[in-house]
Amino acid sequence: MSHNSFGHLFRITTWGESHGPAIGAVVDGCPAGIPLSEEDLQPWLDMRRPGSSRHVTPRQEPDRVRILSGTFEDDRTGGSVTTGTPIGLMIENVDARSKDYGDIRDKWRPGHADYTYDMKYGVRDYRGGGRSSARETAMRVAAGGIARKVLGDGIAIRAALVQVGARAIDRSRWDWDQVNENPFFCPDAETAALWEADMDALRRDGSSTGAIVEVVVSGVPAGWGAPVYGKLDSDLAMAMMTINAVKGVEIGAGFGSAALRGEEAADEMRMSEDGPHFLSNHNGGVLGGISTGQDLVVRFAVKPTSSIRVPRRTLDRDFNETEIETRGRHDPCVGIRAVPVGEAMAALVLADHKLRHAGQSAF
Amino acid sequence: MSHNSFGHLFRITTWGESHGPAIGAVVDGCPAGIPLSEEDLQPWLDMRRPGSSRHVTPRQEPDRVRILSGTFEDDRTGGSVTTGTPIGLMIENVDARSKDYGDIRDKWRPGHADYTYDMKYGVRDYRGGGRSSARETAMRVAAGGIARKVLGDGIAIRAALVQVGARAIDRSRWDWDQVNENPFFCPDAETAALWEADMDALRRDGSSTGAIVEVVVSGVPAGWGAPVYGKLDSDLAMAMMTINAVKGVEIGAGFGSAALRGEEAADEMRMSEDGPHFLSNHNGGVLGGISTGQDLVVRFAVKPTSSIRVPRRTLDRDFNETEIETRGRHDPCVGIRAVPVGEAMAALVLADHKLRHAGQSAF
Amino acid sequence: MSHNSFGHLFRITTWGESHGPAIGAVVDGCPAGIPLSEEDLQPWLDMRRPGSSRHVTPRQEPDRVRILSGTFEDDRTGGSVTTGTPIGLMIENVDARSKDYGDIRDKWRPGHADYTYDMKYGVRDYRGGGRSSARETAMRVAAGGIARKVLGDGIAIRAALVQVGARAIDRSRWDWDQVNENPFFCPDAETAALWEADMDALRRDGSSTGAIVEVVVSGVPAGWGAPVYGKLDSDLAMAMMTINAVKGVEIGAGFGSAALRGEEAADEMRMSEDGPHFLSNHNGGVLGGISTGQDLVVRFAVKPTSSIRVPRRTLDRDFNETEIETRGRHDPCVGIRAVPVGEAMAALVLADHKLRHAGQSAF
Amino acid sequence: MSHNSFGHLFRITTWGESHGPAIGAVVDGCPAGIPLSEEDLQPWLDMRRPGSSRHVTPRQEPDRVRILSGTFEDDRTGGSVTTGTPIGLMIENVDARSKDYGDIRDKWRPGHADYTYDMKYGVRDYRGGGRSSARETAMRVAAGGIARKVLGDGIAIRAALVQVGARAIDRSRWDWDQVNENPFFCPDAETAALWEADMDALRRDGSSTGAIVEVVVSGVPAGWGAPVYGKLDSDLAMAMMTINAVKGVEIGAGFGSAALRGEEAADEMRMSEDGPHFLSNHNGGVLGGISTGQDLVVRFAVKPTSSIRVPRRTLDRDFNETEIETRGRHDPCVGIRAVPVGEAMAALVLADHKLRHAGQSAF
Repeated sequence: MSHNSFGHLFRITTWGESHGPAIGAVVDGCPAGIPLSEEDLQPWLDMRRPGSSRHVTPRQEPDRVRILSGTFEDDRTGGSVTTGTPIGLMIENVDARSKDYGDIRDKWRPGHADYTYDMKYGVRDYRGGGRSSARETAMRVAAGGIARKVLGDGIAIRAALVQVGARAIDRSRWDWDQVNENPFFCPDAETAALWEADMDALRRDGSSTGAIVEVVVSGVPAGWGAPVYGKLDSDLAMAMMTINAVKGVEIGAGFGSAALRGEEAADEMRMSEDGPHFLSNHNGGVLGGISTGQDLVVRFAVKPTSSIRVPRRTLDRDFNETEIETRGRHDPCVGIRAVPVGEAMAALVLADHKLRHAGQSAF
Repeated sequence: MSHNSFGHLFRITTWGESHGPAIGAVVDGCPAGIPLSEEDLQPWLDMRRPGSSRHVTPRQEPDRVRILSGTFEDDRTGGSVTTGTPIGLMIENVDARSKDYGDIRDKWRPGHADYTYDMKYGVRDYRGGGRSSARETAMRVAAGGIARKVLGDGIAIRAALVQVGARAIDRSRWDWDQVNENPFFCPDAETAALWEADMDALRRDGSSTGAIVEVVVSGVPAGWGAPVYGKLDSDLAMAMMTINAVKGVEIGAGFGSAALRGEEAADEMRMSEDGPHFLSNHNGGVLGGISTGQDLVVRFAVKPTSSIRVPRRTLDRDFNETEIETRGRHDPCVGIRAVPVGEAMAALVLADHKLRHAGQSAF
Repeated sequence: MSHNSFGHLFRITTWGESHGPAIGAVVDGCPAGIPLSEEDLQPWLDMRRPGSSRHVTPRQEPDRVRILSGTFEDDRTGGSVTTGTPIGLMIENVDARSKDYGDIRDKWRPGHADYTYDMKYGVRDYRGGGRSSARETAMRVAAGGIARKVLGDGIAIRAALVQVGARAIDRSRWDWDQVNENPFFCPDAETAALWEADMDALRRDGSSTGAIVEVVVSGVPAGWGAPVYGKLDSDLAMAMMTINAVKGVEIGAGFGSAALRGEEAADEMRMSEDGPHFLSNHNGGVLGGISTGQDLVVRFAVKPTSSIRVPRRTLDRDFNETEIETRGRHDPCVGIRAVPVGEAMAALVLADHKLRHAGQSAF
Repeated sequence: MSHNSFGHLFRITTWGESHGPAIGAVVDGCPAGIPLSEEDLQPWLDMRRPGSSRHVTPRQEPDRVRILSGTFEDDRTGGSVTTGTPIGLMIENVDARSKDYGDIRDKWRPGHADYTYDMKYGVRDYRGGGRSSARETAMRVAAGGIARKVLGDGIAIRAALVQVGARAIDRSRWDWDQVNENPFFCPDAETAALWEADMDALRRDGSSTGAIVEVVVSGVPAGWGAPVYGKLDSDLAMAMMTINAVKGVEIGAGFGSAALRGEEAADEMRMSEDGPHFLSNHNGGVLGGISTGQDLVVRFAVKPTSSIRVPRRTLDRDFNETEIETRGRHDPCVGIRAVPVGEAMAALVLADHKLRHAGQSAF
């Protein structure tokens, strides 16, 4: 057991605080012989990076990831490949402005982990939220880039923002190509335009909003996952729930399943030239914890950024009643940056299950 | 790693198929000296048992749990207590009618794990669903009874059915005392009466419906849980998602968080004679993966029973197109029996986190 | 983590006390489609069983193992095969004479775990040693039988007793065929005859003796194991050390390595028609934690039976000084029965590493 | 499961190759509030460091460890303390001379992991042995320094070299104060003098020798450890066997137990003013996998350095027969540097078991 590790055979362990000297990860169990260099990981980090639009925090971190171990420039094969040993990753924190933390130091910010860390540990690195900062997710994204390599080109992991505040996309306009054309990872251009206005209003108010992210994975063969406590969907649920600010997760029809009848919910099967196929996907690509071969469909809800300018009632560390306004650099909608993180978590779960499936099939 | 185990320090491993000779569990890591006998566990099993109302399957299993190890009738202390060694639990399958499985043997039932098990393993105990049957949850309920003992009387774990089909309860009528007064674990007597009629209609149609369960845990102190990948809420999400037919899980405001603004979502704090308290509980008792001391609030969605009388299109094991109607004993709403199972999973997660917290605090 | 589990992908969890109603094990992660029935496991148990010669305890346990889950008599394949789900094993304790435990109940037997269990747990099932009894090893032997199936016929796991008391075998007379021809699993017939006399003398004295067991595994391909903390030899060392009464373990030249020079210890390589081979095997088939393709050679030392008739000074549970003589059924040399247990533990480690290797190689 | 992690509640994960840019470790599960700075760890690293005498490799690594996360200079408490979050450690490799690796690149060095890594992974960072280099043990020593802090001042972990080649110390001259007075960590000054001459002869011959290390831990209370597969001694055995070049491990009387009689081996108990005590310690402080409160005594055997100047027969990576002489910087007796590593591994095992014991006792 390890509180800061994720996965079993393909396993990451992350370390680092928001405003410490660096953050890092160890990726253990990666198969050998996979071409891998820092250039393979950087694009995923750039996708997540703060400062990439006016809707995310302007903190200017270049977020250059370094690979410190686990790959080797083999002079016989040319190119850098994984060696099967642990891959050490690190990003230096270059823009950690550590001067003045006044309020954060002494007051518990509502909606943040300040109070609970203090109750658990009695001490807390308050600078930028310390370990509870979403900065940790940069390492997930980097490690997710390695997981994608393990999964290979046949498996495509994509995510999109499908709701911001009360405004959801029109799914009939879903266009994956749109996702990279707007600052919201929104697959529906018309809705994206409305969100622009919504976000500007929120920013003026010093407020923030929640959102819903949808992750879709294509190309997973039938048979990955495992019964009972190693289910593909229970691992995906856990994975998404470990992302900062996530409050709910669902697979396929999800909470909508409650209102379905049995004949709607149970996806029927038919045969085609390409083999068995399903006539619907209410189960989101998983039955009994094992993949069906259909698209995996996972959605998760992200609560509004807790750091807002609106004054909030709280306590200080001496249990005195007080108020706090959070100033400084904060996304009005952390759900936006959760999109690449959701993709990365899906990649980590699937790489692990690919190896686990191979492990149990070894007879 | 173990596909059929759950938890870390307080850990269960279950085994058994629906129609095999028995099902069982091993509970490892239970502290020593806790009074425990079979009589302590039986009431929880009776609560979950099939056949307890006309709305659940009439399969008549007495479901008598036996404790085969890990307790000892100490002649010095009197009474049976846990010894710190693994607790072996077993329930014999006395009503497994193993005569005729024709259709289930050769056809993949839509919405069930038949197809995926065959794709993964190439072989499958089709009798009653084998390992993928909800019968396995009896062992969770038994083990959950032990977990409650570990948690002690100060922690109350309760669950209720809050939605069946499209019909949700009226939360203003919530009354915990009602939960044991109707066959639905429904906290709202008026809605329970409507569900009676809904269920009768479904049964006539040979159909089924989904549902939503809410679990509320009171008495958890602030400080349980752990950062990043060992979060209390990510473990709860995983736990609920391992329950058969569950398709979604949320904490506190859950998916509703998406539509909230920051000043609504971030629960404010004030001081009282009893110590710090929160003015709302949109975060469901968890911040940064660590308990706040408020009630833990977890909801999960259960899809409709896939075994219905309505004929469904599917394939047989030789990939021929065919139809299937599921006959026999089946709940029209498996969500009902998921209520005690949800309680049990919450108990298992919390007992584990109680021990984990004690472990990391040992300095 | 689990105190009563062993292995990662191929994982066993055992439960049960010496004089409780039964002992059992859950084998999780076993690949599907392996022919398996109770008849496959029984011979291994018979090999270990008490009562098989006058040199082991006359306790008459039939030790009939039952498979309660995880296999299925597939009407399409004929024969019973594993299904990939957890295999529940159980042996009922039929000869547990639970009448009189007087001394064992109240006094701590020197060399036994009585005192330490009481210090740890404050309560202890003293009947026959409870959980600390070597009876638990019956489940290892049964599970080891399944592990052998996973390994397949190409891998042969054999063990022998190579020293009893101060008398070691003459390795020049090593003959595997002799191992089943004497009650000591001794590969040297002449030494076996001397041990007969040694044992009779010990029995007359009411004393006991230690022993050394050697396990040899042939057919393991090069490449199993893993660097640093998942070494094949560190896992073998742990495995053997978990066997009751084991006080030392070594690989290849083992402790003798200390007195070697570098040019002796480092096994040289040459090429032959069959591929690479080594000119010696001081490393016991493992380099850097990974198998070389040579025979794996593991030895472990077993201390003398602590239950002897010679009176011993000890304390009672109220910390009063007293004496104890252990009467009843006890092997004068528990090392004999450790031979099949050592084989079983090697099988468990190797089956796990076979799956782990397949898991990490899945790219 | 993780091949490069060790421990459960107090858990380390190491990464890095001998000649990569850096090596590092993540220490997860450390309790919060423990004073900790880099200055606390450096002395342990200096003790292990190459270049500290003419008997160890002259590689000049300053081995400055950096703490990159998990501690915080709390302005309320003063001083740097652990925060309960993962502690990232790193040492830069400043003296990795990466110019010429000719022979090591293409030939498998006898006694090294070159062949097995190539068989497992198909690729290998050959520079200085890559991941299989003993350089990794620097991180164990650093992490062991943190483990000592968790254990507190009441527990003393000491180790000594008790045999080099065929020459063992005279235990009647054992003096812990001598250990730091000679370059061998030898507790017997007279034997240390003889080893000086032995080593000089070996160096002239271009050869090397094995050794035996003894670790003694005082102050562990009775009750740490756990039955069956989580035994304190099986974890210690595994721990020592993960150290490079270790081929055997024993507890208490160890292999000598084989020649003992029951009345010698089973340590008797008596009462004194200070509580229960044992009249001998053949069991090395562990009974049934649980500590007795006596000194823990663990010995392990280290094989001779495989890198020697004497020419050795081997194969190249194309399976051609060839010879190799290893030149460059190498200790003639790697057992010397294994002394602080053995201490560190004992500290890691005990810190983990301290937390595990607290975890299971939390009722």
